[in-house]
Amino acid sequence: MKHEGPVYSVAFSKDGRSLLTGGWDKNVRLWVTADSGIVNKIFFKHQGIVITAVFSPDGNKILTASYDSTARLWDVITKKQIHSF
Amino acid sequence: MKHEGPVYSVAFSKDGRSLLTGGWDKNVRLWVTADSGIVNKIFFKHQGIVITAVFSPDGNKILTASYDSTARLWDVITKKQIHSF
Amino acid sequence: MKHEGPVYSVAFSKDGRSLLTGGWDKNVRLWVTADSGIVNKIFFKHQGIVITAVFSPDGNKILTASYDSTARLWDVITKKQIHSF
Amino acid sequence: MKHEGPVYSVAFSKDGRSLLTGGWDKNVRLWVTADSGIVNKIFFKHQGIVITAVFSPDGNKILTASYDSTARLWDVITKKQIHSF
Repeated sequence: MKHEGPVYSVAFSKDGRSLLTGGWDKNVRLWVTADSGIVNKIFFKHQGIVITAVFSPDGNKILTASYDSTARLWDVITKKQIHSF
Repeated sequence: MKHEGPVYSVAFSKDGRSLLTGGWDKNVRLWVTADSGIVNKIFFKHQGIVITAVFSPDGNKILTASYDSTARLWDVITKKQIHSF
Repeated sequence: MKHEGPVYSVAFSKDGRSLLTGGWDKNVRLWVTADSGIVNKIFFKHQGIVITAVFSPDGNKILTASYDSTARLWDVITKKQIHSF
Repeated sequence: MKHEGPVYSVAFSKDGRSLLTGGWDKNVRLWVTADSGIVNKIFFKHQGIVITAVFSPDGNKILTASYDSTARLWDVITKKQIHSF
């Protein structure tokens, strides 16, 4: 579940319990604090390097930017892509 | 309306309803959540790659940085450039 | 007073009235909204490209990162460098 | 205690009293305001260039991204690594 290659972006959610990481391997990973430690809950796939990934203010959405010529909006609850820009 | 080439910057407005994207194609795009989905409301043009774009705290202005040797301040309401730095 | 070369970083202060820009020309510029428009109040000099510049939460300090091997903390009130890291 | 090579990332904690710097020399440094000035309290080591470093909302954790193919979560209190992603 680890990243391959450089990690370019990290972010905390506002409550500090969720973390976002993204980078060279085209994946955006969402990590959540659990009793057992930090677990990988979701990962979203781009088709190119991920430059930056941010949480929405309410923490329910993620917005990502990539070398694949898209920005994408993802839903943390349904785990699906909402929109590709 | 889609971006061409890498997208370098994404941001949410504080209320989470507006989104900013900018990148290689020299455009900064503002997207707004509507009943019909996410719609592109405005786009602002630089003359070089857009490196970063941020909302003002009240969401009414946008500040952008570009390889065209300028930072620019834009008004979301009037859709016009306020200042070029 | 304009930047030369790419602008890499922009930021708003929390009250939205001050703006920071920095980039290739080694300068960090602080701009303030006045009745006469946006005026350049201060600029701070690095000895290398400025990668990023951020306001302190109270808006009275600025922290900058540069290719000159330093991060620097600046005082907006006294207009002087507080520390070089 | 100074950085060697370009500094890529700077951040303030929410209370404005702690500062983070990271960059080419693979180190992330945490600086704290003291009566005697700004002192270096902790530094965390990556095995590659540090691209970005951010504070958790409560200021007790730090999340860092590096060219060493990891993002890492650090505890400011215990000064230890909590997790490597």
